[in-house]
Amino acid sequence: MQPIKLYTWSTPNGFKVHTLCEELKNDYPDFKYEVVPVDIGKNTQKEDWFLKINPNGRIPAIVDPNQGDFAVFETAAILLWLEKYYDKDHKYSWPSTDTNADKYRSEVLQWIFFVHGGVGPMQGQLNHFRMQAVGDSKNVVPYAYTRYLNETKRLYDVLELRLKDRDWLVGEGRGKYSIADMNAFGWVAIHGFSGIPRSELPPGVKRWVDNNWARPAVKKAVQLPQQSGFMKNIMEDPEWVADRPQL
Amino acid sequence: MQPIKLYTWSTPNGFKVHTLCEELKNDYPDFKYEVVPVDIGKNTQKEDWFLKINPNGRIPAIVDPNQGDFAVFETAAILLWLEKYYDKDHKYSWPSTDTNADKYRSEVLQWIFFVHGGVGPMQGQLNHFRMQAVGDSKNVVPYAYTRYLNETKRLYDVLELRLKDRDWLVGEGRGKYSIADMNAFGWVAIHGFSGIPRSELPPGVKRWVDNNWARPAVKKAVQLPQQSGFMKNIMEDPEWVADRPQL
Repeated sequence: MQPIKLYTWSTPNGFKVHTLCEELKNDYPDFKYEVVPVDIGKNTQKEDWFLKINPNGRIPAIVDPNQGDFAVFETAAILLWLEKYYDKDHKYSWPSTDTNADKYRSEVLQWIFFVHGGVGPMQGQLNHFRMQAVGDSKNVVPYAYTRYLNETKRLYDVLELRLKDRDWLVGEGRGKYSIADMNAFGWVAIHGFSGIPRSELPPGVKRWVDNNWARPAVKKAVQLPQQSGFMKNIMEDPEWVADRPQL
Repeated sequence: MQPIKLYTWSTPNGFKVHTLCEELKNDYPDFKYEVVPVDIGKNTQKEDWFLKINPNGRIPAIVDPNQGDFAVFETAAILLWLEKYYDKDHKYSWPSTDTNADKYRSEVLQWIFFVHGGVGPMQGQLNHFRMQAVGDSKNVVPYAYTRYLNETKRLYDVLELRLKDRDWLVGEGRGKYSIADMNAFGWVAIHGFSGIPRSELPPGVKRWVDNNWARPAVKKAVQLPQQSGFMKNIMEDPEWVADRPQL
């Protein structure tokens, strides 16, 4: 196969796709991907050439040379595309030969959508109002800051309802690691960056966070930006990285 | 088949599922669904019985008695579930026998995720800061109001890039009506409620809005709450409904 072109940067959404790519590289020696840096600090993602790949002007996006240079945007759609075509044994989802494959696949989608429409945008707004709102000042709109902090914590509590007696979001018994976890972990991983310290994570979520960090592919994925040498790695921000398990 | 249990209320997300259910009822005489009102004004969606169906405490959700009472939450996961099991000819997506089915299905997902993580949450925040923030006062946090108004308009401009020379979001040529359109229309339909009048819609989006309203199932779906007699129908709010095409 030819390498997937991965347009990305050091962000929670980029990290999700880096993770799946690293998992696939471990499992399938012929899987290859090539990182194309898109410097969002310079608004590269709003340039015409990139809008042809993603009209929304956001990273990550991929172009798949093995499928006629088909372009896929939206993080979760990328995970589903890569899983379908390149996770041939469906380790990170369920093969259709499995009993209840359709139900587990629907549960994967349900938890992906929960994060995609909830945790991602709400934690993103929290970061904005905590760090960026109105010039260089911090937290100048306390009503909005409190709103998004509370909503992010509420969403973590929903994850806790699911994770309190499980290792992973979907699957029989204590569950199986899947793209639902990779997708959710991208945002939850930076809880410290969002001002929610490890001590405030619900116990099941904390255990699940550690389960994710323990995976070699996750460690590689979070270091990918630094190793590629092209970007400041917000995933490794020293201000909060001390508050996670040692990798 | 036994009727699908649809837990819903009069909201943009409820409307999306009402639309697909009405389309399926037209196309497949054996398709049945039963509306179970969940009064979000009374916080019914946070009661224990409902959290067993959706731990996030949000409508819509379904329970499918034809599949062992399997519960599905998250609007888009419901659309994908119903399309898979009950749209036997895949009128609202692409059957796997179609050339390029995988690519069109991925495009359906891409536009669903775009709306699910963008238009929905951002327009939802716009509504909050326009109508509800801080007690009964309106627009008391102008920075946040302006942020979400601008972001919602930007997202409509992304839809315009796609729709300017198309009738529907996905498919060959001018496209084919699919669950991607139903999913996007739920929110765009209430542009007036969000303070974006018809005169400010980009031309391709406006044409697409009219294409959606012209469908008999869409008209039925928007009137479903009133006809079920159980809820105030925000989808028919007279303050803004005058600003849409006559149904």
